Amino acid sequence: MISNDGYPVEPWSVREDHLDTDRLGQTESIFALSNGHIGWRGNLDEGEPHVISGSYLNGVFESVPLPYAESAYGNPEAGQTIVNVTNGKVIRLLVDDEPFDTRYGTLISHQRVLDLKGGVLRREVEWESPAHRTIRVRSTRLVSLTHRAIAAVEYIVEVVDGPAEIVVQSELVANEPPGASAQKADPRTGAAIERPLVPEVSSAHGSRAVLIHSTKQSRLRLAAAFDHVVQAPRGARTSVESSIDHARFTVNVHLKPGQRLRLVKFVAHAWSSLRSAPALRSQVDGALTSATGHGWERLAAAQRRYLRDFWDRADVTVEGDPQVQQAIRFAMFHVLQSAARAEQRAIPAKGLTGPGYDGHTFWDSETFVMPVLVYTNPPAAADMLRWRHQILEQARGRAQQLGLRGAAFPWRTIHGEECSGYWPASTAAFHLNADIADAVLRYVSATGDRDFEHRVGVDLLVETARLWASLGQYDRGGRFRIDGVTGPDEYSAIADNNLYTNLMAQQNLRAAVEAVERYPDARRRLRVTRDEVRAWTRAADNVLIPYNDDLGVHEQAGGFTQHARWDFARTKPDQYPLMLHFPYFDLYRKQVIKQADLVLAMYLRSESFTADEKHRNFAYYEPLTVRDSSLSSCTQAVMAAEVGHLELAYDYLGEAALMDLDDLEHNVRDGLHMGSLAGAWMAAVAGLGGMRHHGSSLSFAPRLPSSINRLRFRLSFLGRLVEVDFDGRRARYRLVRGRPLTIAHHGEELRLTNRRSIVREIPAAPHGSEPKQPPGREPARRGARRRPMKLKPGKTKEVA
Amino acid sequence: MISNDGYPVEPWSVREDHLDTDRLGQTESIFALSNGHIGWRGNLDEGEPHVISGSYLNGVFESVPLPYAESAYGNPEAGQTIVNVTNGKVIRLLVDDEPFDTRYGTLISHQRVLDLKGGVLRREVEWESPAHRTIRVRSTRLVSLTHRAIAAVEYIVEVVDGPAEIVVQSELVANEPPGASAQKADPRTGAAIERPLVPEVSSAHGSRAVLIHSTKQSRLRLAAAFDHVVQAPRGARTSVESSIDHARFTVNVHLKPGQRLRLVKFVAHAWSSLRSAPALRSQVDGALTSATGHGWERLAAAQRRYLRDFWDRADVTVEGDPQVQQAIRFAMFHVLQSAARAEQRAIPAKGLTGPGYDGHTFWDSETFVMPVLVYTNPPAAADMLRWRHQILEQARGRAQQLGLRGAAFPWRTIHGEECSGYWPASTAAFHLNADIADAVLRYVSATGDRDFEHRVGVDLLVETARLWASLGQYDRGGRFRIDGVTGPDEYSAIADNNLYTNLMAQQNLRAAVEAVERYPDARRRLRVTRDEVRAWTRAADNVLIPYNDDLGVHEQAGGFTQHARWDFARTKPDQYPLMLHFPYFDLYRKQVIKQADLVLAMYLRSESFTADEKHRNFAYYEPLTVRDSSLSSCTQAVMAAEVGHLELAYDYLGEAALMDLDDLEHNVRDGLHMGSLAGAWMAAVAGLGGMRHHGSSLSFAPRLPSSINRLRFRLSFLGRLVEVDFDGRRARYRLVRGRPLTIAHHGEELRLTNRRSIVREIPAAPHGSEPKQPPGREPARRGARRRPMKLKPGKTKEVA
Repeated sequence: MISNDGYPVEPWSVREDHLDTDRLGQTESIFALSNGHIGWRGNLDEGEPHVISGSYLNGVFESVPLPYAESAYGNPEAGQTIVNVTNGKVIRLLVDDEPFDTRYGTLISHQRVLDLKGGVLRREVEWESPAHRTIRVRSTRLVSLTHRAIAAVEYIVEVVDGPAEIVVQSELVANEPPGASAQKADPRTGAAIERPLVPEVSSAHGSRAVLIHSTKQSRLRLAAAFDHVVQAPRGARTSVESSIDHARFTVNVHLKPGQRLRLVKFVAHAWSSLRSAPALRSQVDGALTSATGHGWERLAAAQRRYLRDFWDRADVTVEGDPQVQQAIRFAMFHVLQSAARAEQRAIPAKGLTGPGYDGHTFWDSETFVMPVLVYTNPPAAADMLRWRHQILEQARGRAQQLGLRGAAFPWRTIHGEECSGYWPASTAAFHLNADIADAVLRYVSATGDRDFEHRVGVDLLVETARLWASLGQYDRGGRFRIDGVTGPDEYSAIADNNLYTNLMAQQNLRAAVEAVERYPDARRRLRVTRDEVRAWTRAADNVLIPYNDDLGVHEQAGGFTQHARWDFARTKPDQYPLMLHFPYFDLYRKQVIKQADLVLAMYLRSESFTADEKHRNFAYYEPLTVRDSSLSSCTQAVMAAEVGHLELAYDYLGEAALMDLDDLEHNVRDGLHMGSLAGAWMAAVAGLGGMRHHGSSLSFAPRLPSSINRLRFRLSFLGRLVEVDFDGRRARYRLVRGRPLTIAHHGEELRLTNRRSIVREIPAAPHGSEPKQPPGREPARRGARRRPMKLKPGKTKEVA
Repeated sequence: MISNDGYPVEPWSVREDHLDTDRLGQTESIFALSNGHIGWRGNLDEGEPHVISGSYLNGVFESVPLPYAESAYGNPEAGQTIVNVTNGKVIRLLVDDEPFDTRYGTLISHQRVLDLKGGVLRREVEWESPAHRTIRVRSTRLVSLTHRAIAAVEYIVEVVDGPAEIVVQSELVANEPPGASAQKADPRTGAAIERPLVPEVSSAHGSRAVLIHSTKQSRLRLAAAFDHVVQAPRGARTSVESSIDHARFTVNVHLKPGQRLRLVKFVAHAWSSLRSAPALRSQVDGALTSATGHGWERLAAAQRRYLRDFWDRADVTVEGDPQVQQAIRFAMFHVLQSAARAEQRAIPAKGLTGPGYDGHTFWDSETFVMPVLVYTNPPAAADMLRWRHQILEQARGRAQQLGLRGAAFPWRTIHGEECSGYWPASTAAFHLNADIADAVLRYVSATGDRDFEHRVGVDLLVETARLWASLGQYDRGGRFRIDGVTGPDEYSAIADNNLYTNLMAQQNLRAAVEAVERYPDARRRLRVTRDEVRAWTRAADNVLIPYNDDLGVHEQAGGFTQHARWDFARTKPDQYPLMLHFPYFDLYRKQVIKQADLVLAMYLRSESFTADEKHRNFAYYEPLTVRDSSLSSCTQAVMAAEVGHLELAYDYLGEAALMDLDDLEHNVRDGLHMGSLAGAWMAAVAGLGGMRHHGSSLSFAPRLPSSINRLRFRLSFLGRLVEVDFDGRRARYRLVRGRPLTIAHHGEELRLTNRRSIVREIPAAPHGSEPKQPPGREPARRGARRRPMKLKPGKTKEVA
């Protein structure tokens, strides 16, 4: 059987067949459960061993000082880091007084399954204690997608080979040491705070307990509570106790073979920056009462229904490559988990799966995660942008601090304030603001949600347009320039007229003009003058587009193509990612690209380039792009497909989808890469499916690589559910739900109605030889063209 | 009487007439004494009050961690900061048990005089104790220019109005709290370390004591010792004692009016990274024995002789502006002090006058301080470059770390390792390496010191040329580009083809070619291949010179003139220096110049520009230059003079000379600005005197502004001492010492012999209207054109 770096290939699950302690950190992320509000890493029930023990609440952070070797005006002085909150996962077990610990005794079997349809993490263990008593434990964990405050664990113990005294201790643990930190020199890891929580309330009664704590600097209050249902043979005794950082519910029972102890643990989490301890306590108590009222079965059933609806709307079916099929569903499951119940909180780059990047949210959320949500779960997309709207005041303040108008959204943040300590790759990356505007446009035009546009969207569009108007200037030739900024490619910085930035700013300015014309009351509310609107139009109409006539390609930024090419030939495989082995000064001054930048512009501003330009640009930039960011392969997939390199597109789709299952960047232990996971969907739908959406038009240009037999996906658009289903020769379009809709197939307009599918031939792909990647940076080859696999440094990989 | 911001104008001294505690920090720097090895700030004898108590030994530093909010490859992890060493200045006094402290009792008179001919700081105080006993104290302090390890104080106490019990306590104090630190947000201040010294030896006997300490991280050992000579009325008793961080010699005497107590305190300092405590102890004991053998009078006489020789070679006489006359001598005195006995140690940006910039050495030393030394004190210039030679290994290592060949000298350092925590304004400022090469060229061609060139110079030239060859690349047009670097102007960074950098690199490359041709053995020793030499020549011949045809001006860097001009009109006077009020991102992307950059290139690479180009460039860049660095006005003086704006040149000369006496940057408390002080000489000699030196040719183009009547200066060149003396109409050249020499006067060759002066008419200056500076950034106007004075923010100024 084909194996995804150890996980057997299965269509609807990710399974670990035995406990591999070397990969414990990775599985903690892979098996994380979340509903976007609560995040539980896939730690073992018994708490240990762990690499990073993590329980997170979206929005709960601590302020930390940001140190600088040399101070400078405008540097943020305080950072924010995600806090490991009270751990409600822990269920310890003693067998005849010996603690069940996989490091002792004999682990006869150990299996964990992430069930993508059930939305649960299941575990089955057979363990022989050092005293030779064998037990079987089955636990099922869920973080409820329907009950936002609730997580639950069903925990079943049986004895196999003889009677034993069983003690189960279900716990809440606050201020637990979070675990070993990763390499310090890697800027992508997060900061760990010692004992972040100040105890406020600790109380236990019956089968319940509650712990309330607050954070020291950020002054957030958080509550965790548990309740339990026990099914056990006669004679079982239970007790409960609590201390400041700890609560414990204990079940003690004598089990004989054939008997079992079943414990259901309900955990409620809540937090607030405003509400009192008694209020929070009532909140978690109420949630527990509701959850115990429903009981485990109904919670689990609701979870399954929620996911059935989701997969019905959103599933992507890949025939002919079960490995990618699994990976893409895994990806979409985690993207859903990160956003489902975030409800006007941010979606961090790692979701709530780990402490990487300090739990911060970047542009990934708008540019990569957002499109998946817009077309598969629109309310979650709207909520994400409502969060941006909520932090508008901080963004306005930052703009003012920087001497700019409008809003300058933070490059990385939890609470809305800029938390980046290296401005050339953060503050200067103003494109984030246009990315937010792009997400607003996308959401509004894909849903027709005028109420959102009126109350939320127009504010975001106007304030970001104001930023661009104050950030740019006219040169002597009357061109609107945006100098000294950083585009998506973080191996360049502080460049003039980054093409991506300029084109995205142009779209942003135009969108703001249209929005204030549509909503005169919003224009008055935001005090937008006629002069301002004229200035936006003029700027948009005159944006400088850097182009090199000699080479016949666009420039990533002014002068980019005159820089030396990176010496790829001399760069050793173990010197990637380059940023860990070469100074920024050298990366910035050379033609080497961390992640798609101009190539992303060709996708998001597709209409600004001719087909010829796209071909030439892709051919020029592909050999410079090293993909040291997980955000690159999906974009390269999209543009490779558009210019006709379908096998390459599919390779990139595979890379995006397998980023975390295969741990391609060796940092999955710190959390999953939501942007790349979302990018797998983008590579399939916008890449192979050729989906483009501009304004109210929705078009497709499906083409299948020879490596797979068929691709099918569904998406929501203006209240309809559309299905696209194609093989190498024909595409079939179907309106699954909703009123008739006109779409396009390779430029031909089609009117979809409820009655029947429309089938169209797929035209041949454009010719042209595939460009080469930098040596050693080829994506792993999939399917038809399969050649000897290029290995990522330090990795081995099984191939069918 | 004209007053220099409080210091009466006197030709050969700087006097403070009363103790102004608001200016205590400034006077601690102004009255600092140093010989380049030892530095004693002008703290009061009795130690308190002080703002920053400082005693420094050149090269004694402590390692400190350099923190980063986000880590990155190549960031230095350890910084170095100057250490406040054992304080030997302290002499406390008790009058009838009441401590003499200017903050108590009544200060009847208090005068301090820095004697620029005597090389001493004199103080005269009359003080009435709270118990109404009046005493007179006269102290004279010197840091010996002839005895490198020795400082001394003559301390005389008299009672004025009646008998008193006098106790004098002469002390060594280690680990004293250094004093209040300046604004934390200002990157120009230094870090203060708590208790940096670990005690090793403390011993006292007779009138002597010694304290030996070592630093914790940098593991340097330092010794301070004192000895005393006492002259007192009969009955005086003395005692000595020591503890780990303290030694005290006490004299107790009953004084009647007419009697006096005279104490001479000799202090010896020594340090080593290698020598043992006994060895260091012997070293300071030996130095003390020598010093006491000479006695105070002979030390003071030797000091005066040393300075007589210096002024004979180096004095600059300004007739018609006594304020500038005083300032320029003050400036030269401090430049001499910073370098006189540094002896293969660095010359820090602040000399040894304060903890500013952590005691680091920057490019200031080569580009600003060095020329003064080359033409007035050549051995000190050679020693400075020998220090660079000593840290060549660190510079080679840094180049390797950065992926470059040759040597990359540290932007800021004490011990040779890069200590800068913000790479865009440090590591990227590679021009430093060409500045070192320029200093080598200047020293060698001004002295003919072939031995130095052979043993030291060629290594520096070759390793820096190698750096440039690896740093640059050829574009498609065959031009040699140096991309992504930072020039002298720190309000731009990471730019392509900074003109200054490219021109200085060109000179560097050519100099290396010539040096290896002259010294084949050195070429072999340094393994310079013929290909390498050819590559240097080719690079030098093809260096890209950015020029804007539309504007008819050179560009500071590629694309610079296309950036938005800074909005000077909206910048408020209290928003300077801009770096404390605006983010670097905004400064970098706009046309605003912190300090002369292209204008400095026009001085140092004068022959690369036509006269017309110089005019146009100066006119273009002057209105963009805000002089937020003390290193700018001198350069602007030189080029203003060359293009004919003599009054403006003189204004800038005044600003450079008065930088510290007038505390124009409000940070003199942290130490003097050696670069600017040296720049005063440069403004006079290269500016008004029009001195240019290229290879073996020495030329002058003197022109006098109408504000002064006459300017005279002397300089050493190839073993000669040349005097240039001019008024508004005629210049007189005289060979004071040495063999005949050919020089040029406004292009006309003159042969100077010993016999007589040569007098020439001065041609009229070129016409042309003076460019304007950014509003509010005009230099204070001096002399003829005098208009209502522009005030620096927060400053008031007396004017005659």
